[in-house]
This record gives sequence, C-alpha cells and structure tokens, in this order.
Amino acid sequence: MDIAKFVQLSLGCWRSQRSAHHLAFRHFEEVISTIEIEALAHENTEVIDLCKTHNIDPQLTSSPFKMSWSGESDWDEDEDELLEGSTILVPIPDPESSTKGRLLRGRGYAETIPSIGEYYFSDDGTFILITQYDRAAAEEKIWFATPNLRFRVSLIKTNDGKGVTTASFSSEIRSLNPNIKN
Amino acid sequence: MDIAKFVQLSLGCWRSQRSAHHLAFRHFEEVISTIEIEALAHENTEVIDLCKTHNIDPQLTSSPFKMSWSGESDWDEDEDELLEGSTILVPIPDPESSTKGRLLRGRGYAETIPSIGEYYFSDDGTFILITQYDRAAAEEKIWFATPNLRFRVSLIKTNDGKGVTTASFSSEIRSLNPNIKN
Repeated sequence: MDIAKFVQLSLGCWRSQRSAHHLAFRHFEEVISTIEIEALAHENTEVIDLCKTHNIDPQLTSSPFKMSWSGESDWDEDEDELLEGSTILVPIPDPESSTKGRLLRGRGYAETIPSIGEYYFSDDGTFILITQYDRAAAEEKIWFATPNLRFRVSLIKTNDGKGVTTASFSSEIRSLNPNIKN
Repeated sequence: MDIAKFVQLSLGCWRSQRSAHHLAFRHFEEVISTIEIEALAHENTEVIDLCKTHNIDPQLTSSPFKMSWSGESDWDEDEDELLEGSTILVPIPDPESSTKGRLLRGRGYAETIPSIGEYYFSDDGTFILITQYDRAAAEEKIWFATPNLRFRVSLIKTNDGKGVTTASFSSEIRSLNPNIKN
C-alpha cells in the first residue's frame, strides 16, 4: 500500500457510524455522519498555500484531497449538535520510502489549527498517522475491510504521548448513491 | 511480539468499554464489562481435553489461558441483559515462525462451539486472529496502547469472508485493584 493508492481507494462518499470512548468517565458518544473525500489538483491554491505555511516545496505533494463531514452527535441528548466541517489534506511522501511520509492538514483533529503529522503503512496495509499538537497528540489507524468498507481508530493522547484520553472507532460504508446522504 | 509475551501482557483484570456497530441497521450497542485473564498450566485437564478434541499434541501448546467476562449490554433498554461466560484459549505456535500459529478456543465468539483460529502478529505488534465458523467468520485485532490499555476490533463476517455484518471496538483498561470490579 502507498499513499496514492490509499487516497484513490478513499475517494467518494461514506456513511460513518462512530463511537467515542471517553476513558476516564467510561462515557460513550455516538455519531452518525456523512463524509465526502474528493481529489484536489496539485496546483490548487489551497494546497500550494498550505505547503507554503510549512515551507514545503509544492512539487513534493502526492494525491492532495479534501475531506468534508456532516453529522450528528448524541453527546447532548436534548439538542443534537450538528457537526460540520471540511479540511484539506496534503501528503508529502518520503522520497526514499513509499510506505511513509508527512501529512499536512488545514485543520487538525484534536485542535482546529493547521497541523503536520507523520504517517506510515504497516505490512497489512493499515495507514497509521501520528500528529503532535500543542497540548495533545493524536494517532489514527485506517484500514479497508473491503473496497466499500473502511475502519478508523482514533486516539487522543496526552501531550507526552503516553496516556490516552479518548478512543474512537468508525465504521465507514461507501455510499454507492451519494445523492442519498443517509 | 510473540504469543507468550502477548499472553503475559494480557494477564489480569480489565474494565472494558465496548461499542458494536450493526452495519446494516446503523445500530449502536454499548457494553460495559469486566474481563479476567488467567494463566493455565500446560497440564490442566481442560487444556489437554481441548487439544485432544482437535487431535493436537498437548506438548505443542504455549501459554494457555482462561478468559472470563461479566457485563451489561444496553441492547434491551428496559431490561439490561447480563452477559457472563468464560472460555479457555490454547495457543499452538507455528514451530517454524514465532509470529503465527493456531488458537484453540473452548467456546467461540460468533458461535458458542469449540473453534480453531489462525493468528499472526503484524509488524507493529498487533495480534490478528481469523476464525472460520460454520455460518460466519470472525476477525479480531488486539493491540496495546500502553501496558495498561489495550484495544480490540472484532468483525463478524459473512461465511465467505467478504462482507462484514458487525464491527465492534473495545477499550480495555487494566484494573489495578481487581477487588473493585467497576
């Protein structure tokens, strides 16, 4: 597996079922959402701007893409919170290895500021991304069970990377008719 | 990672938070449980009997153990179902590779009959177990985030192994005082 193939497999519209475990409180959170992943051109101005923010040559990018999501959380039972957003993601493969690299993100997972993470693929094709933020670290594992079903485990870690505060699991099913959002 | 080390790390009492995704219905199920994992002696009669059931020489076993669980599901909201049970598990490492082998189970995950699965470790230390049952197949991935926190993703697959009906995710935290069960 390499990043170009992984992004290619990920393009499209996905219906996501996500469970978060807030470990200290043994609290469960459930989110149903729709995720869209679209390819971006290398010369897209947002892609080039994000590279410039990190002083990275835009020629080094591979398969940049945009991810948009829209969902509902059960966190507040009385008034379901609508979760919407989008971010661009720009892979910078390691020139010396096809199985690892860096991932620039216009908006982070643990904190909503631009971030840069390190990714690699394990030998069973799992994409693993580790991102260090100012006050936390995030680890994401994403893998395909079939071409139309992918799973994602996301961990929010303490700043030193040694403890885990939140673990979440998503089942993402490809929506073969993207006009039907749910 | 090898099976002896993995079982050693797993021994003890764990508090588990589990979310199941029933994919066709987009249904969530939540289970809070306690799991105990105890080492068994090679000469334990249940271990020897299970080997005999599968015509396997008991001398080939490594680190047999017993797993017991007790929990509550929210599946039926009016009357929480109490889930209790135990099973013995007997690894049979491949004599030619420390990273793979077979796992005998006194009682299966997808069906409550004795089962035999194939396991291996990926290069990041994840234990992966694939078990074929009569009418389904199961895949489990278990890995440690820290010595006191492990995660488990379990998939119930269709008989041909190509589709997934249920995906579940468990966060398991070591209970440092096993007298306090919750």
